[in-house]
Amino acid sequence: MRKILIVGAGKSTAVLIEYLLKKAESENLQLIIGDILVENAKQLAGDHARAKAISLDIFNVEERSNAVKEADIVISMLPARFHIEVAKDCLKYGKSMVTASYISPEMQMLDDEVKQKGLVFMNEIGVDPGIDHMSAMKVIDRIREKGGKIILFESFTGGLVAPESDTNLWNYKFTWNPRNVVVAGQGGVAKFLQEGKFKYIPYNRLFRRTEFIEIRDFGKFEVYANRNSLSYKKIYGLEHALTLYRGTVRRVGFSRAWNMFIQLGMTDDSYTMENSEEMSYRDFVNSFLPYSPTDTVELKLRHNLKLDQDDIMWEKLLELDIFNPEKIVGLKNATPAEILQKILMDKWSLGKEDKDMIVMYHKFGYELNGEKKQIDATMVHLGKDQIRTAMAITVGFPVAIAALKILNGTISTPGVQLPITKEVYDPILKELSENGILFEEKEIEYLGYNPLGEVGN
Amino acid sequence: MRKILIVGAGKSTAVLIEYLLKKAESENLQLIIGDILVENAKQLAGDHARAKAISLDIFNVEERSNAVKEADIVISMLPARFHIEVAKDCLKYGKSMVTASYISPEMQMLDDEVKQKGLVFMNEIGVDPGIDHMSAMKVIDRIREKGGKIILFESFTGGLVAPESDTNLWNYKFTWNPRNVVVAGQGGVAKFLQEGKFKYIPYNRLFRRTEFIEIRDFGKFEVYANRNSLSYKKIYGLEHALTLYRGTVRRVGFSRAWNMFIQLGMTDDSYTMENSEEMSYRDFVNSFLPYSPTDTVELKLRHNLKLDQDDIMWEKLLELDIFNPEKIVGLKNATPAEILQKILMDKWSLGKEDKDMIVMYHKFGYELNGEKKQIDATMVHLGKDQIRTAMAITVGFPVAIAALKILNGTISTPGVQLPITKEVYDPILKELSENGILFEEKEIEYLGYNPLGEVGN
Repeated sequence: MRKILIVGAGKSTAVLIEYLLKKAESENLQLIIGDILVENAKQLAGDHARAKAISLDIFNVEERSNAVKEADIVISMLPARFHIEVAKDCLKYGKSMVTASYISPEMQMLDDEVKQKGLVFMNEIGVDPGIDHMSAMKVIDRIREKGGKIILFESFTGGLVAPESDTNLWNYKFTWNPRNVVVAGQGGVAKFLQEGKFKYIPYNRLFRRTEFIEIRDFGKFEVYANRNSLSYKKIYGLEHALTLYRGTVRRVGFSRAWNMFIQLGMTDDSYTMENSEEMSYRDFVNSFLPYSPTDTVELKLRHNLKLDQDDIMWEKLLELDIFNPEKIVGLKNATPAEILQKILMDKWSLGKEDKDMIVMYHKFGYELNGEKKQIDATMVHLGKDQIRTAMAITVGFPVAIAALKILNGTISTPGVQLPITKEVYDPILKELSENGILFEEKEIEYLGYNPLGEVGN
Repeated sequence: MRKILIVGAGKSTAVLIEYLLKKAESENLQLIIGDILVENAKQLAGDHARAKAISLDIFNVEERSNAVKEADIVISMLPARFHIEVAKDCLKYGKSMVTASYISPEMQMLDDEVKQKGLVFMNEIGVDPGIDHMSAMKVIDRIREKGGKIILFESFTGGLVAPESDTNLWNYKFTWNPRNVVVAGQGGVAKFLQEGKFKYIPYNRLFRRTEFIEIRDFGKFEVYANRNSLSYKKIYGLEHALTLYRGTVRRVGFSRAWNMFIQLGMTDDSYTMENSEEMSYRDFVNSFLPYSPTDTVELKLRHNLKLDQDDIMWEKLLELDIFNPEKIVGLKNATPAEILQKILMDKWSLGKEDKDMIVMYHKFGYELNGEKKQIDATMVHLGKDQIRTAMAITVGFPVAIAALKILNGTISTPGVQLPITKEVYDPILKELSENGILFEEKEIEYLGYNPLGEVGN
């Protein structure tokens, strides 16, 4: 039996394991599921003959190296910062590995040694990063093979609530790590390229400079810019691209409302608030408003943000019960972002029957034989239930498929990699599409931002 | 002769030296002026018999220790981060020292040793910090001695252009380090206390949450909050204060206009812009606005900031010539903040005839015999010429006076200190007032923020 060690029994691991167990007989697999809490691992292993749960503290050198030594390949589903510990053991004991996280500088530094040992360390193979890389590179390579030159690349991804479960004014619920949503856009300016012009959006304007997109019959969405659009020039080899723009998808109206929190300072994660534990939700809001002996917190907020009382933004705040003087934060030494997260989790957590949705939208503008053309590709995936969420499926499936393909030698180019070569994306996208994760493409008229070739600003 | 080593021949050093040279005969002083560029030092020393210029690179251990060894006391006018090198030598060779900078953690760590050796390391003895500490503590101590309890302390300082030289729409020119003005308010939330409520203002709102003050017949000013108001609770021992608020003074309208730069992202100092060297001022502005094939940079900015064409804010931008496509930035790998600074320096540098102004305003609210009272104290100092600016005088004089008082033993309590004790502030404030730097005090009705004792928010 070929042993796959899966480290970390987290949210998306259940789907991944389910996928691999279905293939366990035909592929002759044994899954070893390791978690610091063996109960978590046991729950995922169930009583399946081909799954075994073990207690695994990755900071316990002996536990870790024993587990890695035994495996034929390792999948790390740990938080990104912990992969490196596992990676070093994989290198030591000559095992390939798979993660869904961005390649860290420490991981990149292992590249030479990984190549020397003929191993594959496949990273960034979840949904975003992951399916975005593969689906984009597949179209980009096809255009290039025909002799086309990419002049525009835009790519948008969002984890949202499915239309049937879209029941609040924000058209949003937490479908993954809430913390990432609360601090989204922080830590650096959003930088991108439009028609050859470098553009920069500071955090305090990020959620006001959105663009609209339509996705098939799912309707209208909006996109705010990601921080790192320019780095894709090098990763995808887009040296001719005049437009490079990546963003995060939300339902229309979310960003304008979210911007209220940014303007007030509620998303700040850089300092802790005085008396955060005893503070009420109302106190929290009031901390960001001027003192007044008489005016209410409500009026001060409306005045500060210039909200009319019939503005839907105001209704959105009320829906969060954010002015409640009875609800207590109850978090010690909490940052504004942590407190806001707690307030939002009261209202935005997925209910038992709620389903989520992943949307992805790529635009490829290119020149071929002197003509400008455009391909738009969209993917929408809906969650099935609380375990088989769209997020867990679109992260877990590509990870599982990649691990199997590496084990079987279909993917064999050694090194610290991300899935941008045909060898990787072709077989994985094929298998994803057989599992219902697929893109619809259409050729449309080239739009760009300057179709008439004006001077442009 | 008693030797005073002055390290760093910078902007405010000329005034400081002039002051000390006037006393050189009567006090039997010899000034040793050291700078990494000996020419700078020579210019300040002139041909005065009691002043000597030396070449002094503080990172050259030998040069540094030789200079310190020779001195009876050391004044460091270096940028704040360099004091510690000098301080360690002062400790080694048993010399007291004076700086105008905030006490760094490294400096604070020397306290025990400085005390053991009976030395005085006096810091924060310029204008802000410096005169603010002394003038505030003098009133606070006086109120306490009468049995009063401080319930409100507010303190505002600004370096501005003198009314007679106030010739632009911004009512502002650079009277000190322009860089500090451009990045003012960055690096942490502004945190203060109003009527017992903790209040937080994020950077993107800082220049919109101003308060107005009037200073005698100099008219109306506005104040934006400093970052660190709460730390003064401990420093000044204001454990009963319900209101603690420190801020920076500008002429009314400056902050609202400055906020445009913040909103656009032009004050960001955390990343460098592409092609900054070749970029025109117009390109710079356009980098922060959405791409358009047809709309002008002007209209995009007006739309983005919602400016009517007859808004004075718009005139302020035009005055800076910020839309000029011919003016080139000419700075390699520059941050937005560096580029903005350059654009502003074209227009906001002090002219030859221009004079500056320092304003300081303290409010002390207190309870005495069950009654609430308030003292307001204001100081305005006008510059004389390009060398004897108000800033150079109000920084240089207290430094010089402190050095002399330490040398003469009037100030003798050992340790790493700031000027908050009577031993320090009494003689220095007295001598400052003899030199025209003095406060006007008036008792007024207690105002606070909640005179009627409402519940308050």
